[in-house]
Amino acid sequence: MEKLIYLDNAATTKCYEEVAELVKKESVEGYFNPSALYKPSVDSAMKLKNARSTIKSALHAPDGELYFMSGGSEADNTALFCTRKAKNSKIIVGLGEHDAIINSANELKNQGYNVVFAPINTDGSINVEEFKNLLDESVSLVSIMHVSNETGAVNDIARLVKLTRKLAPNAVFHSDGVQAFGKIKVNLRALDVDLYTISAHKIHGPKGIGALYVKKGTPIKPLIFGGGQEKGFRAGTENLPSILGFELAVKLNEEKFEQNYSKKLLFRENLIQKLKENIDDLVVITPENTSAPNILTVAFKDIRGEVLLHAIEDDGILVGIGSACSSHHESRFKSLLGLDDSHRDGIIRFSTSEFSDVNDIDFVVDSIKTHYETLKNYKRV
Amino acid sequence: MEKLIYLDNAATTKCYEEVAELVKKESVEGYFNPSALYKPSVDSAMKLKNARSTIKSALHAPDGELYFMSGGSEADNTALFCTRKAKNSKIIVGLGEHDAIINSANELKNQGYNVVFAPINTDGSINVEEFKNLLDESVSLVSIMHVSNETGAVNDIARLVKLTRKLAPNAVFHSDGVQAFGKIKVNLRALDVDLYTISAHKIHGPKGIGALYVKKGTPIKPLIFGGGQEKGFRAGTENLPSILGFELAVKLNEEKFEQNYSKKLLFRENLIQKLKENIDDLVVITPENTSAPNILTVAFKDIRGEVLLHAIEDDGILVGIGSACSSHHESRFKSLLGLDDSHRDGIIRFSTSEFSDVNDIDFVVDSIKTHYETLKNYKRV
Repeated sequence: MEKLIYLDNAATTKCYEEVAELVKKESVEGYFNPSALYKPSVDSAMKLKNARSTIKSALHAPDGELYFMSGGSEADNTALFCTRKAKNSKIIVGLGEHDAIINSANELKNQGYNVVFAPINTDGSINVEEFKNLLDESVSLVSIMHVSNETGAVNDIARLVKLTRKLAPNAVFHSDGVQAFGKIKVNLRALDVDLYTISAHKIHGPKGIGALYVKKGTPIKPLIFGGGQEKGFRAGTENLPSILGFELAVKLNEEKFEQNYSKKLLFRENLIQKLKENIDDLVVITPENTSAPNILTVAFKDIRGEVLLHAIEDDGILVGIGSACSSHHESRFKSLLGLDDSHRDGIIRFSTSEFSDVNDIDFVVDSIKTHYETLKNYKRV
Repeated sequence: MEKLIYLDNAATTKCYEEVAELVKKESVEGYFNPSALYKPSVDSAMKLKNARSTIKSALHAPDGELYFMSGGSEADNTALFCTRKAKNSKIIVGLGEHDAIINSANELKNQGYNVVFAPINTDGSINVEEFKNLLDESVSLVSIMHVSNETGAVNDIARLVKLTRKLAPNAVFHSDGVQAFGKIKVNLRALDVDLYTISAHKIHGPKGIGALYVKKGTPIKPLIFGGGQEKGFRAGTENLPSILGFELAVKLNEEKFEQNYSKKLLFRENLIQKLKENIDDLVVITPENTSAPNILTVAFKDIRGEVLLHAIEDDGILVGIGSACSSHHESRFKSLLGLDDSHRDGIIRFSTSEFSDVNDIDFVVDSIKTHYETLKNYKRV
């Protein structure tokens, strides 16, 4: 494979060169344990503090704390399992949430909680009216993602939080922001969430590092107990090299945010237009105006997404068929989008990054068109 | 500070240059999500499989699985919280365990379990007779570390497991091997443990990566739910760059194991001898014959370890006063070693690595002697 056109950035991203270089340098030179007592460790502890501050600023986080942990899944699990919840109380999670939420919610169901899945619209966003009807005083926890990893749809979290505060005053509100942070403007002060999950590897940072924002006063305890790291909330020797890599990735994302936002939007607009011109009966799932600019999810008629994925892979084009995490088992998601039988198995998710090149679109669509024409008549039997 | 003599390798180690370089390369070039479907991801999944196999071999692990996670603390927490335990059953953990075990055990106590702390000897090792007396059929879990992070003492895990199998047949046996793996020979087949924790950053690998070995048939569920990564046991996008760095660190440690073992032993023998020649009333806590070669813990008379630590730091010498994780609060550990009042606060832990140079010992001991002579009369009031 000569040239690679990587359009699966919602699964994971290429780490920035300068981030990877910093992680390397800090691993070899700045390796000291931030919890030790000598000067190099005190310096490490200071760098850690600055990184926390940088990322909190980028989130426009109000009073509260940002706790570094191993990634989005750990942060999501901490939100679901470690918040204080009355026994057998109601827990509401979106039906389109990431598996880290869905499977944690299923475990809570096994533990006796009244877990309710909030229905989604055909674009992957939460159905606000139906959500509203689920709210009552017995709700202890709500978890609704900010941006759908499957479709890029943005949920109006501020509105959902307002409804929750009013109708379910005992609930803690968590939002998984893994697909939002760095992709759309995130302002935690405006959203007014209690808990918010972010991850580094979706924004060209290192893998294995993420964070959970916890608003001041939120009743929550640790998932991982041990040494007093992260102000006693998350044990384990601080992964300072990766935390500093995360901080740098956040800075680089912020610097180029507007420019990259436009670039991704332009890429998507061109891709949609060109796809529509060349492919009959294409269903565009991603909502045009209320979505992150980097994701375009579509459904092709009479073909399996996986077959098309492998066909265009031969031309060096890498795309997703939805969440990578669940790509090896039948997606529960595709049945939720109201697609007719001929489109249900034909989902492809294109997800771009600042490294995506609008000049590749012709090649991508030509490849898709060619393979699609050949393959669409070989239906799954 | 010009030259640094780093003797706190039990807290954390400098990452091997070649490991840090590999992590960098994999972050920038091999960043693909191992759970995705296209060829580069399938290659990533294959690398992941090979890394697992390399490390399992290094552990001489019998049938079972090695699950990668974010580090020793997460693995310890998984062992304590996620094994199947009868309600209110007895849980035995060593009194000298790392905080990741002690604080998890305290949380289990809060949850209603009958948590019992097994007494330790004055060298930090488990008192086998007293341990034996705690065993009975109500025990659901035992957790005893392989090597003490505080003193380097090696516990005879094989013997403790045998006793447990006989007298507490319902118990799952976990051992925290964070300070053992790469430092002493570890053979999980011979130890016959059910669960074993390892960590990369203690053996010149990356921070933020470790693993839990789980013997086949051990009743355990995940701590972190989500995507089906790690065979469904540990969710979260695989931190492949760090896992490959871990694998390389394990290989490098294995290649040089005998040579480095002798080197560390020589360093320690020389250090003990020279310290004894120069410092009166020094108590050597680390047992001479049943300890990992890289740790020497001693107690100075009439001085606080922290004061001496900062004094020799000015000469570029970095040492520990016990577990870094708990260095910011009063150590519960030092009261367990049977030290008299004049030695109790004077603990210093020297911990070496293959990068430690025996030629530095004279300088280290001279620095200690000079500062000790000056400071020992300034007692804590």
